[in-house]
Amino acid sequence: MASALRVLGIDPGLTRCGVGVVDVRADRSASLVHVGVVRSAPDLAVGERLAVIAAGLRIVLAEHRPDVVAVERVFAQQNRSTVMGTAQASGIALLLAAEHGLPAATHTPSEVKAAITGYGAADKRQVQSMVARVLRLEVLPQPADAADALAIALCHAWRRGGADRTGTVGAGAGDPGGLTPAQRAWAQAEKAAARR
Amino acid sequence: MASALRVLGIDPGLTRCGVGVVDVRADRSASLVHVGVVRSAPDLAVGERLAVIAAGLRIVLAEHRPDVVAVERVFAQQNRSTVMGTAQASGIALLLAAEHGLPAATHTPSEVKAAITGYGAADKRQVQSMVARVLRLEVLPQPADAADALAIALCHAWRRGGADRTGTVGAGAGDPGGLTPAQRAWAQAEKAAARR
Repeated sequence: MASALRVLGIDPGLTRCGVGVVDVRADRSASLVHVGVVRSAPDLAVGERLAVIAAGLRIVLAEHRPDVVAVERVFAQQNRSTVMGTAQASGIALLLAAEHGLPAATHTPSEVKAAITGYGAADKRQVQSMVARVLRLEVLPQPADAADALAIALCHAWRRGGADRTGTVGAGAGDPGGLTPAQRAWAQAEKAAARR
Repeated sequence: MASALRVLGIDPGLTRCGVGVVDVRADRSASLVHVGVVRSAPDLAVGERLAVIAAGLRIVLAEHRPDVVAVERVFAQQNRSTVMGTAQASGIALLLAAEHGLPAATHTPSEVKAAITGYGAADKRQVQSMVARVLRLEVLPQPADAADALAIALCHAWRRGGADRTGTVGAGAGDPGGLTPAQRAWAQAEKAAARR
């Protein structure tokens, strides 16, 4: 597993913070390391809730020692009542990555969908079933936040070219397939999964 | 100073995070302990910036050992481009308070204005000159984020009744003055300041 890139994906949230750790190899094949959800009780003060989330994330960082952290990007335009808590939880995730000396990146929901399915407007179930297929999982991780965290982790690895740290994804303009980098990445992952 | 309540006020921000520490006594008089700004460079990654803010706040917590932390509340409706960074910085402030075992509260900008000036729609300069007067400062703290942090700290102490930890602010419905609790608090602070 020395040649794999280990990515911790985080779907930030105050009530449920999804965490997913995957190993992604240079051929873009991936395997599940850990998936779960860190929960905090809604009746706690916000600071206490953030401390619970931070403690849970620290355990995952210590146990699984990822190479990089990928966090779903939060927008103010997502005008749900929970958006501030989500932003605060994402801040905790980015802080902990920095304090562990790890690079961190954020990806938008449509970047995640495009990386996983080749289609930025894919629905959540399409993304989740692709994630299960790539990771050869017999059941979808529950709750959805856990599956979303795996999708974010896979998105990050594929966009940067898996364990190939040069960061070049797919071929150049002369590529005969006419596929987007995401579609090529997906096709290659499917082929890699089929070989097993 | 044993009978004073020491409040750390935080005006959260990623570029400039205002910090102000005040001691507030049961008679609502207050004195300045510390005021400053924690800055992070805009060219750093967000996680690194949050780590710089966290490091600065930890120094203030360790040096000045507040009894309570008060943070300005951030709203998604404040549709500035910086709102997500502000929310993330506020999350770091609330996390650190919880991890230091300190109670934390958030106050809206209009709560702060009302507590300081008796008028929720007061302008920033009115708030700042009141803060300078209450704390007997000859010059206004600069930048504005530093003065705002002091206002948040004073707001918190006065709303909860200063060092009187029963939390009763002002008199009941029979109060002859016809003043709001904030106006009474202000009048009392002015009287206390004049006595010196």
